Amino acid sequence: MNQSINFRPIGKIRTQFNERTGTPRQSVGAEAERGSLEIFPIFQEGLRDLDGFSHLIVLFQFNRNQGYRLTVEPPWSNVPRGIFSTSSYERPNPIGMSVIQVERIEDGTIYFRGVDMLDETPVLDIRPYIPDLYPREKVKTGWMKPEHIRRMLGGKSGV
Amino acid sequence: MNQSINFRPIGKIRTQFNERTGTPRQSVGAEAERGSLEIFPIFQEGLRDLDGFSHLIVLFQFNRNQGYRLTVEPPWSNVPRGIFSTSSYERPNPIGMSVIQVERIEDGTIYFRGVDMLDETPVLDIRPYIPDLYPREKVKTGWMKPEHIRRMLGGKSGV
Repeated sequence: MNQSINFRPIGKIRTQFNERTGTPRQSVGAEAERGSLEIFPIFQEGLRDLDGFSHLIVLFQFNRNQGYRLTVEPPWSNVPRGIFSTSSYERPNPIGMSVIQVERIEDGTIYFRGVDMLDETPVLDIRPYIPDLYPREKVKTGWMKPEHIRRMLGGKSGV
Repeated sequence: MNQSINFRPIGKIRTQFNERTGTPRQSVGAEAERGSLEIFPIFQEGLRDLDGFSHLIVLFQFNRNQGYRLTVEPPWSNVPRGIFSTSSYERPNPIGMSVIQVERIEDGTIYFRGVDMLDETPVLDIRPYIPDLYPREKVKTGWMKPEHIRRMLGGKSGV
């Protein structure tokens, strides 16, 4: 089980953000920010039937990470927390996950709103967003209180 | 951008399912099925502060996959669909994603309900499930009609 798991980018994300400072921390809350996701030609056939989905889940690589930490202090909370209880990018496997809003899909490119990625971010996967898979009732969010979540949704990195 | 992306398992999932046939296709709808997620000792410090989260998102590797397809026929729909518009495991990067219900966390192991993974599945990441990040309103699910979603939630592979 300690072997390496090898993936490859299926495309890349183009955004106006070149450094973390000033980049939104979550796609929800960043609807005003537009970006695009260019799928490499050999994978473009897989985009068929995405028309008509208003939202998609994108998995991407935090490719500028250097190493990881097992506890981090979220910028909007001064208490060190176990990394798996946060959405920090300093994870052992630096995978990012965003729910994006599709504007249009054209020539192998998905134009979207809800940008919280840096320019040239490698894309791992795209999947349909189906609200029924995400429970609403009887959900408890541990140490993340409503004010933390509000600050996380409104926040930008390094600000 | 065509370089390999290398991750490593942070733990493994133990379930009663040894083959796809009969394994639930989605964790939501499989609340009766119990399993556990064993984190490897070097990553266990990262589990701190997960107490109090009722649900977690688990990213894992479909490690028994052989190759991928760009169009697939979901078992509950006879029409071939672009892979990225489905949750099929035959994706270019075979990453699975489940929202699990935590029962308890003990000695580096998360006991949970909502099993849709095979035994010995490598775990890539664990993250807090925060409902606010998942929109409910004005969501359109393209070709996936309510009856498809119902069948997906109730379905088991190969059945």
